Amino acid sequence: MATRRVLLITIILSYLLCALSEDIIADMTCRADIGQDEISKVWEGEFFPNISYIRYEGPASRNPLAFKWYNAEEEILGKKMKDWLRFSVAFWHTFRGDGTDIFGSSTKRWPWDDGTDSLMMAYNRMRANFEFLKKLGVNFWCFHDRDIAPEGKTLKETNANLDAVVELAKKLQEGTNIHPLWGTAQLFKHRRYMHGAATSPYVSIYAYAAAQVKKAMEVTYELGGENFVFWGGREGYQSLLNTDMKQELDNMALFLKLATAYKKRLGFQGTLLLEPKPQEPTKHQYDWDVATTMGFLQKHGLSDEFKLNIECNHATLAGHSCSHELEMARINGMFGSFDANTGDAQTGWDTDQFLVDIAEATSIMLTVIKNKGIAPGGFNFDAKLRRESVDVEDLFIAHIAGMDTMARGLRNAEKIVEDGTLQTLVDNRYASFESPLGKAIKDGKIGFEELEQEALNSEEAPLPSGKQELAEMVFYSFI
Amino acid sequence: MATRRVLLITIILSYLLCALSEDIIADMTCRADIGQDEISKVWEGEFFPNISYIRYEGPASRNPLAFKWYNAEEEILGKKMKDWLRFSVAFWHTFRGDGTDIFGSSTKRWPWDDGTDSLMMAYNRMRANFEFLKKLGVNFWCFHDRDIAPEGKTLKETNANLDAVVELAKKLQEGTNIHPLWGTAQLFKHRRYMHGAATSPYVSIYAYAAAQVKKAMEVTYELGGENFVFWGGREGYQSLLNTDMKQELDNMALFLKLATAYKKRLGFQGTLLLEPKPQEPTKHQYDWDVATTMGFLQKHGLSDEFKLNIECNHATLAGHSCSHELEMARINGMFGSFDANTGDAQTGWDTDQFLVDIAEATSIMLTVIKNKGIAPGGFNFDAKLRRESVDVEDLFIAHIAGMDTMARGLRNAEKIVEDGTLQTLVDNRYASFESPLGKAIKDGKIGFEELEQEALNSEEAPLPSGKQELAEMVFYSFI
Amino acid sequence: MATRRVLLITIILSYLLCALSEDIIADMTCRADIGQDEISKVWEGEFFPNISYIRYEGPASRNPLAFKWYNAEEEILGKKMKDWLRFSVAFWHTFRGDGTDIFGSSTKRWPWDDGTDSLMMAYNRMRANFEFLKKLGVNFWCFHDRDIAPEGKTLKETNANLDAVVELAKKLQEGTNIHPLWGTAQLFKHRRYMHGAATSPYVSIYAYAAAQVKKAMEVTYELGGENFVFWGGREGYQSLLNTDMKQELDNMALFLKLATAYKKRLGFQGTLLLEPKPQEPTKHQYDWDVATTMGFLQKHGLSDEFKLNIECNHATLAGHSCSHELEMARINGMFGSFDANTGDAQTGWDTDQFLVDIAEATSIMLTVIKNKGIAPGGFNFDAKLRRESVDVEDLFIAHIAGMDTMARGLRNAEKIVEDGTLQTLVDNRYASFESPLGKAIKDGKIGFEELEQEALNSEEAPLPSGKQELAEMVFYSFI
Amino acid sequence: MATRRVLLITIILSYLLCALSEDIIADMTCRADIGQDEISKVWEGEFFPNISYIRYEGPASRNPLAFKWYNAEEEILGKKMKDWLRFSVAFWHTFRGDGTDIFGSSTKRWPWDDGTDSLMMAYNRMRANFEFLKKLGVNFWCFHDRDIAPEGKTLKETNANLDAVVELAKKLQEGTNIHPLWGTAQLFKHRRYMHGAATSPYVSIYAYAAAQVKKAMEVTYELGGENFVFWGGREGYQSLLNTDMKQELDNMALFLKLATAYKKRLGFQGTLLLEPKPQEPTKHQYDWDVATTMGFLQKHGLSDEFKLNIECNHATLAGHSCSHELEMARINGMFGSFDANTGDAQTGWDTDQFLVDIAEATSIMLTVIKNKGIAPGGFNFDAKLRRESVDVEDLFIAHIAGMDTMARGLRNAEKIVEDGTLQTLVDNRYASFESPLGKAIKDGKIGFEELEQEALNSEEAPLPSGKQELAEMVFYSFI
Repeated sequence: MATRRVLLITIILSYLLCALSEDIIADMTCRADIGQDEISKVWEGEFFPNISYIRYEGPASRNPLAFKWYNAEEEILGKKMKDWLRFSVAFWHTFRGDGTDIFGSSTKRWPWDDGTDSLMMAYNRMRANFEFLKKLGVNFWCFHDRDIAPEGKTLKETNANLDAVVELAKKLQEGTNIHPLWGTAQLFKHRRYMHGAATSPYVSIYAYAAAQVKKAMEVTYELGGENFVFWGGREGYQSLLNTDMKQELDNMALFLKLATAYKKRLGFQGTLLLEPKPQEPTKHQYDWDVATTMGFLQKHGLSDEFKLNIECNHATLAGHSCSHELEMARINGMFGSFDANTGDAQTGWDTDQFLVDIAEATSIMLTVIKNKGIAPGGFNFDAKLRRESVDVEDLFIAHIAGMDTMARGLRNAEKIVEDGTLQTLVDNRYASFESPLGKAIKDGKIGFEELEQEALNSEEAPLPSGKQELAEMVFYSFI
Repeated sequence: MATRRVLLITIILSYLLCALSEDIIADMTCRADIGQDEISKVWEGEFFPNISYIRYEGPASRNPLAFKWYNAEEEILGKKMKDWLRFSVAFWHTFRGDGTDIFGSSTKRWPWDDGTDSLMMAYNRMRANFEFLKKLGVNFWCFHDRDIAPEGKTLKETNANLDAVVELAKKLQEGTNIHPLWGTAQLFKHRRYMHGAATSPYVSIYAYAAAQVKKAMEVTYELGGENFVFWGGREGYQSLLNTDMKQELDNMALFLKLATAYKKRLGFQGTLLLEPKPQEPTKHQYDWDVATTMGFLQKHGLSDEFKLNIECNHATLAGHSCSHELEMARINGMFGSFDANTGDAQTGWDTDQFLVDIAEATSIMLTVIKNKGIAPGGFNFDAKLRRESVDVEDLFIAHIAGMDTMARGLRNAEKIVEDGTLQTLVDNRYASFESPLGKAIKDGKIGFEELEQEALNSEEAPLPSGKQELAEMVFYSFI
Repeated sequence: MATRRVLLITIILSYLLCALSEDIIADMTCRADIGQDEISKVWEGEFFPNISYIRYEGPASRNPLAFKWYNAEEEILGKKMKDWLRFSVAFWHTFRGDGTDIFGSSTKRWPWDDGTDSLMMAYNRMRANFEFLKKLGVNFWCFHDRDIAPEGKTLKETNANLDAVVELAKKLQEGTNIHPLWGTAQLFKHRRYMHGAATSPYVSIYAYAAAQVKKAMEVTYELGGENFVFWGGREGYQSLLNTDMKQELDNMALFLKLATAYKKRLGFQGTLLLEPKPQEPTKHQYDWDVATTMGFLQKHGLSDEFKLNIECNHATLAGHSCSHELEMARINGMFGSFDANTGDAQTGWDTDQFLVDIAEATSIMLTVIKNKGIAPGGFNFDAKLRRESVDVEDLFIAHIAGMDTMARGLRNAEKIVEDGTLQTLVDNRYASFESPLGKAIKDGKIGFEELEQEALNSEEAPLPSGKQELAEMVFYSFI
Repeated sequence: MATRRVLLITIILSYLLCALSEDIIADMTCRADIGQDEISKVWEGEFFPNISYIRYEGPASRNPLAFKWYNAEEEILGKKMKDWLRFSVAFWHTFRGDGTDIFGSSTKRWPWDDGTDSLMMAYNRMRANFEFLKKLGVNFWCFHDRDIAPEGKTLKETNANLDAVVELAKKLQEGTNIHPLWGTAQLFKHRRYMHGAATSPYVSIYAYAAAQVKKAMEVTYELGGENFVFWGGREGYQSLLNTDMKQELDNMALFLKLATAYKKRLGFQGTLLLEPKPQEPTKHQYDWDVATTMGFLQKHGLSDEFKLNIECNHATLAGHSCSHELEMARINGMFGSFDANTGDAQTGWDTDQFLVDIAEATSIMLTVIKNKGIAPGGFNFDAKLRRESVDVEDLFIAHIAGMDTMARGLRNAEKIVEDGTLQTLVDNRYASFESPLGKAIKDGKIGFEELEQEALNSEEAPLPSGKQELAEMVFYSFI
């Protein structure tokens, strides 16, 4: 009892001190206007003292803290692996994820985390982020505005918090190649967005969301981010009974137009990306999948202003294979960036797991190669440790496995491309469309009448096999 | 044994006779040019002698062969029930469905069916169709070209078969109000279409499909059909490994353009309809859902030429509620016609059941009312008896239940509309967009900067409840 | 600034005071041994001052705060509605649910909630619970141990907290008919259970879980609870790669045996209930569905010691209709209690919505009637307001709608039972098993040889129709 | 025209001849009692003249018609590959599958198939089967009674047909190691079984099913089959509204008891296997999954008489991973045999594809190794060519890919077992259950009271990580 009492008194006294002398000690509970001097006081020790820089050791290595397949500088099909893959760490999962799930409270006890939502905490997280990026050898990071800095009592205070953390991040970026793959605005967590942000029925929320996106775009720009993403976590509905879907969709389109216009005024050159997801948290999200999102952009004249950030787990939730979504975007020139994760084939929610399936990775990389890479997009690990993985080294192991998996996929895809068997199989299937008749059709020179004559006058030719089993055999022979 | 031998000899002799004197006896095995006289020889007895004309008896009736809710001439919201609902019988399910499923052979033994695929059989089926329509009091029917007439040895012969049956159908239509709600071409059953029709990798199949659609459009026109539907049962893929998705989609778009052009040359005034379905029979169908199909049409400049034929069971297979798909089409002006059926919420394939859920029907009718009806589209019962339902009366019971369900839905929806509570709840939610700020946004008069100022300068207002439970309570109080 | 500083100082001083003089002021941060006097100091005002007692007003009423179908004392099939339905409020959803979802923080701002997890807060919540129960006219409540009282620093402290709240609850129960339908132990939220409780790989956690269940059983007993439920939220696995499934299942069986033994020593006469759920939060829960859970109980000789608490939403997540699960339990004598909720047919996670579908409710009540009621089980509303429903009245509206829906289901089911058509249809289908041959089979008097002779010697009889469409027509005619 | 006429006359004359002189020429249309002489007249040429015996050529081979990983005689973990894997060809898919799907007619035109359902056709198919088995180097085949011989007009005639084909099969087996892995009775295709077989509401159908199973068991025994399988394709329901589930389940249990009794009278030593499947063709199959089926057997005292035949695609349809189902059976001693196929993760029906995923195969083989093999069960390719795969070589390619995939899985699993890292990770997780406390619990020596004392008196220890990402990294490093 006595010990506890002493502990309590200590805590209380520190609170008291904070309240009484707010110019001296920086704590978010007090205020956000921490100065430059204070930043320098942020703890500068290592957060991962037992983890050294991760090196490439080749496939024979049994070291969990080494790359076996990802060799950043190695060239594959004329490009370095790091340039094909452009890996990015997702700040939210890696530095804000605490293992909470819908039935459970947090499980992680990270060394940088003091359990508060203070600005000092935000600084420490950001330092942990950079230590992690460097040790992992990754040059990109992705963030939501609200991941990296605490929300204040007012928007003004919130923006000030954000500015303070961004200033630190810029300092940390100095002298490195590290910068954001993309930034985004978190428009889904706060209760104000429960009815939607750009699709909120309330004009004041719409304005607030606009203000937040504006600011997030500015700090992304300031940090040298190469893209800006919109994932509309609350842009959807829970029930059609209380929803005016037409108005919501129109409002959302308008919002994106305003974002586009502001981007130009700001001078931000990065790509704007929409991220499709079919459902969760809402029952129905408007950016359901690639095709839906492309259709929406087209309807509202926004196709040239946006590309897509595609996530595997979202693809499978929508009933598509991940490759389907990537290919659908690719052939429409809309493949902007990739959220490298995977779901569980037997569960109906977003599990955001690190992708470790090599066949899937190979299939993904075939699309990336056909797309000649996805820069200025990249491979963002929108993936989280399982709730039960509570060791610091798990963070590294998970990312290493994710990077090695994509690297194996790239190596396999290279072999498939160089072998050429698969592509030949496809080309041969469609060869008849290169015949005079095929060309006449594609050139729009003939109509139904001529085609009918063709059909009436031709013998039916034997139908070739689709050769799917052969194609699968060939594909898996390179895995 | 002797009896069987005699029977066999008889069959054989008739074949022999047919082969030797093909000008004399008409049998589909031989040829299609059955003459007018022969048509008159088609059996003219009743197929459903024990079923009389189905009458409206009101909700208190316990007679399974009577309507309790559908009263064709009764006015609801200023329109007759029959004009809101425009019911149609699907020829394929009702007259070609034999109870076969993927693990089982046929179960039905219909009185008009002699087990052959002869032209005489086709005539009898068509007569059964008209007897059924008349007894049920339905004025529309829907058909695939290959449902109503047998495939011949050549396209020419097939077309002749089709002409023969269409001639009979026209005769049967004479003096009635009966005509097709829509016709369509069956481009999925024959092995020639196994790789696709408009998306076949083989140009000869593409031509054949074009010829078939041309002819199907012609006979639909001839029969006075009000719409023409495209359901691309094989327009999709089984595996991306052997598929050139871009070429297939481009070919499909071109095909639809040719169809549009031919429709105009033909003078057909009906609506062209695409029917979305996500998968089955292929792993992935290109016309996945309403949003995907609208996006595809838009991309290829076809939005003004097509509307959509929406099926509930296809909606649910795509992960949407049926109402979602209908509403999405409605607010985009693309709600063309409706395939009134339902699936099983726990199974992953197209069960094509008659819709009996009254809440679902009410929700559907709310959309139809908002759309001010769907003419020239209608409510086609793309639904089949369960495999185990083998009584002739089951055909009637199923359709009566389907019609009564939609009629109850209409009556409920009328009450909801007249009550107005639900609409008021929705209108109030969005009222702030009618404020000066809301209007400025919608008129495009302000940008992110102004909205940011708004957000910075306003107090955050308390957030209203979404009132979903209240909306549900109100909705179900009218069921 | 000054105001905030004053506020902070006040808070801190109160903490300080608490720490220094722990015998005087009761606050959960300090300790749990609040005395009787203190309890009396708990705020005794109303939490729902604007809501009066909910009355039955009949189907014509448009008052959202009245029952239209549930008339507690009215007799249906020889039993009062309240005795058929035995409604229960779920403490966790109604008094602990804050609107949080996996992508969003809390949205509710309930009048009794001061945002702390203090013991005083726990008292106030319990008072709110009783006010709610009384105004709603519901006599049962369900709770997890950790819902009603805060976790302390040690198990001992936690138990003391629990005792304190239970004491208050007992006082509040005095002079009423209110008591728990069931209690349960929350073995899933705390990080200690992240690997499981009875299936944890760690023996210390297993022991902790045992201690927690023991205590929860004791307080359930003390409060007069009629059942005790086990829902193993973490009894499952995330990956087979790191799991010894056999050991986990054996440990779980052993745990249940120990629970059974302790129940007897305790003298608790209530029913022990397992609650099946297929997944979420884990990838695979061991109590997957009714059949799996029954098989598990049987294997371990526990079938006579447990019944099942069945939840609709869990049924549908497992790929079954709710009625399937209820019927499967009923025909095996295992239908113990019911969690009256529903899911969303298009989403793959537990949405725990209030059930408003009348057809579903009718189907459920048919099983309940066949089971001659489910007492000592009941209808627990394991359902939560939507995240966006933030009005206090929404809590009432949701429960009223849920109660009215089940009451309509009961009224409809009564009509179906009294009409008898459906039961006759079923009985007729199976009549041949009452023939001499049928009885010989059922009595085990004949084997394959005799059945073969029967088959060889009989003509195949015509197969009757399954009459599913007729059955559906009859069923929906009573909705 | 003339040609066609001649052709027709020829066909007709042969029919005529058949009808007139039925003692001379054997044709199924006429009768089944074909004599030994006639069998010798069955065409004895090769059906696959362009395919030679498939050889092992090692991983470097690019020959699609060679094994790269399956080397039958090579030893892995002390057992030959062929003894681990015991591959079997499924007669139905390979020799009866014609490419039909629910929306399409047949696509295959196999060289042995004359389009009839005659006995001669059955002989030819059986010869094709043996040529295929020999060329593929597979010693087992699986069959339904109705796959291999045509149904006659009466059960007697059907049985005679079956006997005739079995006689041929026995001759073909002579001097080889080839024999059935298992036989089974097809109780789902014929309309008589539309309401179920052992669960039919009609006693006459129940008797017929018994007669059919009796005969199928006899011929399986006669052919030296090592197991006998029950897959209840119609043992389930389409709607609960017209179903007496209790009676159906009781009848099914009784049926299995009769089968068990008859097996003993017959002297058949093989294993009886139930094959779980959740749905399709019925809405709900009673043998839903492994756990459900085990529970059913247990309830009816049949656990010792049956094991399970587990199919991957059925596992995934039930919402489980394939490995889950195999492990669940293994730890209960019920893993009898394996249907080696896979489904499509995005479709909701049984696609019965050849399993080519190496990671899945590795996971499966880990369970097989833990089970010390599955003899007398084996790996039956219950998998079919895609509808579009119409080349004879596709049959070989598909089976080779399937065999190589399992062989790669076996090789990978061997490495994982020998490496030991994964097993150590699991063992360490559960080590605390080997402590004195753990043992006391497992020995049933302590109860809740002692465990509570333990929990009250212990400090909470830090919780170890679940190491799922590490486990995945290790697992995939061996793929």
